[in-house]
Amino acid sequence: MAINLLNEKLSWRSQQANRISRMQRAQETLGLALSGKILPALEIVPLLHSVLEPGDRVCLEGNNQKQADFLAESLRSVDPQRINGLHMIQSVIALPAHLDVFEKGIASKLDFSFSGPQANRLAKLVSSGKLNIGAIHTYLELFARYFVDLTPRVALVAAQYADRQGNLYTGPNTEDTPAILEATAFKGGIVIVQVNQIVDQLPRIDVPADWVDFVVEAPRPHYIEPLFTRDPAQISEIQILMAMMAIKGIYKEYEVNRLNHGIGFDTAAIELILPTYGEALGLRGKIARHWALNPHPTLIPAIEAGFVESVYSFGSELGMENYIRARPDIFFVGPDGSMRSNRALCQVAGHYACDMFIGSTLQIDLMGNSSTATLGRISGFGGAPNMGSDSRGRRHASAAWLKAGKQGRQASGQIPRGQKLVVQMVETFREHMHSAFVEKLDAWQLAEQASMPLPPVMIYGEDVTHILTEEGIANLLLCRNVEEREQAIRGVAGYTPVGMGRDRRVVENLRDRGIIQRPADLGIDKSLATRDLLAAKTMKDLVRLSGGLYDPPRQFRNW
Amino acid sequence: MAINLLNEKLSWRSQQANRISRMQRAQETLGLALSGKILPALEIVPLLHSVLEPGDRVCLEGNNQKQADFLAESLRSVDPQRINGLHMIQSVIALPAHLDVFEKGIASKLDFSFSGPQANRLAKLVSSGKLNIGAIHTYLELFARYFVDLTPRVALVAAQYADRQGNLYTGPNTEDTPAILEATAFKGGIVIVQVNQIVDQLPRIDVPADWVDFVVEAPRPHYIEPLFTRDPAQISEIQILMAMMAIKGIYKEYEVNRLNHGIGFDTAAIELILPTYGEALGLRGKIARHWALNPHPTLIPAIEAGFVESVYSFGSELGMENYIRARPDIFFVGPDGSMRSNRALCQVAGHYACDMFIGSTLQIDLMGNSSTATLGRISGFGGAPNMGSDSRGRRHASAAWLKAGKQGRQASGQIPRGQKLVVQMVETFREHMHSAFVEKLDAWQLAEQASMPLPPVMIYGEDVTHILTEEGIANLLLCRNVEEREQAIRGVAGYTPVGMGRDRRVVENLRDRGIIQRPADLGIDKSLATRDLLAAKTMKDLVRLSGGLYDPPRQFRNW
Repeated sequence: MAINLLNEKLSWRSQQANRISRMQRAQETLGLALSGKILPALEIVPLLHSVLEPGDRVCLEGNNQKQADFLAESLRSVDPQRINGLHMIQSVIALPAHLDVFEKGIASKLDFSFSGPQANRLAKLVSSGKLNIGAIHTYLELFARYFVDLTPRVALVAAQYADRQGNLYTGPNTEDTPAILEATAFKGGIVIVQVNQIVDQLPRIDVPADWVDFVVEAPRPHYIEPLFTRDPAQISEIQILMAMMAIKGIYKEYEVNRLNHGIGFDTAAIELILPTYGEALGLRGKIARHWALNPHPTLIPAIEAGFVESVYSFGSELGMENYIRARPDIFFVGPDGSMRSNRALCQVAGHYACDMFIGSTLQIDLMGNSSTATLGRISGFGGAPNMGSDSRGRRHASAAWLKAGKQGRQASGQIPRGQKLVVQMVETFREHMHSAFVEKLDAWQLAEQASMPLPPVMIYGEDVTHILTEEGIANLLLCRNVEEREQAIRGVAGYTPVGMGRDRRVVENLRDRGIIQRPADLGIDKSLATRDLLAAKTMKDLVRLSGGLYDPPRQFRNW
Repeated sequence: MAINLLNEKLSWRSQQANRISRMQRAQETLGLALSGKILPALEIVPLLHSVLEPGDRVCLEGNNQKQADFLAESLRSVDPQRINGLHMIQSVIALPAHLDVFEKGIASKLDFSFSGPQANRLAKLVSSGKLNIGAIHTYLELFARYFVDLTPRVALVAAQYADRQGNLYTGPNTEDTPAILEATAFKGGIVIVQVNQIVDQLPRIDVPADWVDFVVEAPRPHYIEPLFTRDPAQISEIQILMAMMAIKGIYKEYEVNRLNHGIGFDTAAIELILPTYGEALGLRGKIARHWALNPHPTLIPAIEAGFVESVYSFGSELGMENYIRARPDIFFVGPDGSMRSNRALCQVAGHYACDMFIGSTLQIDLMGNSSTATLGRISGFGGAPNMGSDSRGRRHASAAWLKAGKQGRQASGQIPRGQKLVVQMVETFREHMHSAFVEKLDAWQLAEQASMPLPPVMIYGEDVTHILTEEGIANLLLCRNVEEREQAIRGVAGYTPVGMGRDRRVVENLRDRGIIQRPADLGIDKSLATRDLLAAKTMKDLVRLSGGLYDPPRQFRNW
């Protein structure tokens, strides 16, 4: 059978040819203002006008920490008559400028992962028709699509320093940069980098100049959000009780050694009682040794007490620089002494090399599905679904993974398989006496409002292994059917309507079978759950325990 | 509560201090033979003696294509009295030298992913107690552990060129190198690189010299296996029939646009009939547009016919260099014109950005679990489990994913969720009339023999959505219970004992419900399943269709 070949005159180099025209336009526009790859900050809008084309897929670096904020603001200043209909691809919608480009018609489509700070405004732009959402992703799946069907035509990223050749130093906050640039630079795209400073000699090279087209020294250093700092002073005794249950009922029970903690006070409490409660239980060197985690300041006491063997990070945390530099046995640091992070690889580590994800949530339904979506806010997913799902491509065993797998499949008659521990930790009532347990997630209504194909579930009930509240732990692995699962969830839902709706007899039976465990069942003396158990009670304690190396951002200091 | 801090004199820089001693020993041993980071090939064993320490975790680069073979052979030559008990971490056990180090006592522990060519000998070394397997992984989860609990102390890798400063060009076969070096160089490890040539000017920089400690020009270029080349002449008409069913019954049915193909003739047949059968069905531009795939030569006709929009690759394929260079719109190429691969990122792409994995297997049981493990051979997993499992951290929708999810959950009452298509393609009888369908996988017996914690299952039945044989397609998503699932599998198992054991009435009912589809049910005329349908029938055809750009390795040429 003959095959229809494409017209032989078809160019197979259209992307390269298009790249050359863009580069030529830039050269013509900037002329002598361009010194090699380096341009003055004042020329950035003319550069964007010359290299961007309407409808371009543009990856603007912005995640939960580092922001290419100067480039974001410059993009907002382009002329919508010339540059419009851009398809923005970015990890996080965080700055007003990120949405201004939609308001102005410069951009029209968005693929993203998280939009916490701008969730309300994003929802409004969607309703008004000015912003069309492609999809909401976890970080790692968005990176995956860079290489498959969402390859950026232009990347706008941030680095700490560049040298005069255009080599980059991204340092502790390397984060998303390598993944974005690898996809863009190797598919004929254009790479524009804002740097805090152009220097003669970089501390180390994180990205070779070959991958970079233009470098601009921004008028001010790029923004970094200290997202992972939690003040120990704000940790409540309920959180301490929950942390005790987590350590004794889960970390110890499953011998969890490789793990990720979500953001928040619940898990910060666990970090802070490892050196006290964990030590008293004789668990040093037996649990929580290897972490895929940003350098949480609240982990300092556990590091100093010898609990932690290694920490690999998605990004860094402001103020932790000197502490990390002084603890190279724990953190991943370069030859120059500063940390190297890499969000893509750390998400891979969280997905495949961790035995447990534990994190907080806002709402849990009767099947154990949980979501942080609430009405009128399109907040997205971030990294939690990637960490908080069973990694079914995993094949290597560990004690924790085998035990969870055995418990989860004992009644199924299926071939044996391991399973990741996915723990949702939540107080039964959240702020303003809203129940954390609901019959139906707000996500359903949100899906309808925003015409999403599926309700935006953060962690699916099928993937959750344990729910932990101040009332106890529900081990969903051991439930034999959906009815038991529902009662197990009701059985730790306290005085919420969901909790009050429990069948007391069934719940007692679940407790007898160890599916529900109360603090007493775990041998936990609730009277010990006081702030005395915190290895650090204040930010100042963290500084002291770090030997003065930790330098908290100003907003966390009251001294 | 007071916390026990570690002895304040504890060093937090033991890895760095240890690295400095190793580097000093190397300096003392090699002295003037060392020119910057570059040493003569003759000095490699002395270098290994000076930088290695007994018990080290050593990552030796070796995957299904590129081999750091000179370093592997050099490692075999070290003195086991001085260097012993190494813990080897490597993607693939492929060369005799990889196992010689265990025979000689230089190494004693192994964490790996695949051992195809050495599977028998590996099993013998395990029985003899000379080799202790940590675990068998998929590629991506092994990379994940580099950053968590299996960080290499010494990395031995291969690159194409280095410049005199130690910058590396890894080019088309970049593969595992960046992940290995990122983990090693940023945790105080030692990086040794064999290169084919030291040059004054690299085509581009793939790895900055900062990440490299020593470079040696090997006496011969590193080995590359042309693993993904399949001669169209060997494709059978049964394979063509199966390929027709795949395209009409699955690709078209689910609108599959982002995909990965396993290695083998079954999927090569699909690639080769896209431009004929796929074109006749009007599917150009509607299916199979974006690929996470090595540059398979059998994909050339589909590329030339305009089916393929993009291909991102784990590694390269020998002989495809010039073709790739001439098709930059399709492949990921650098500013120098040659391809960039990256196994870690391409596995991420395969896991999270693909809607379908389709591949062959050796054995399938009645639950749909499949395995390539057979008795006496410990062959490992490679990348298949990562691609061939439902990616439960995925949150973005596509038509294929939504439809599979809907079919798979229609009876469950669970919250809606998408699902990856995982297709196992197999002829009912394999070589020597062995049945591909079995009551019990050999993997069970292998697990017992080798004391594995779980039977080595390649793809779990829970993750498989379709089984495709010459008899038809079984859609496991639509099965309401395990009994139906078993009969669906028996219903496509042909004249194997498993197939003969079918309940004819149930199977006919499954066919009525579209759960089993025969070629006739799909409107496929079996008489068209001839080699005429192949867009290329020989290697020479592939060369011709590539416009003379494809240059097959000698073993694939008969002219």
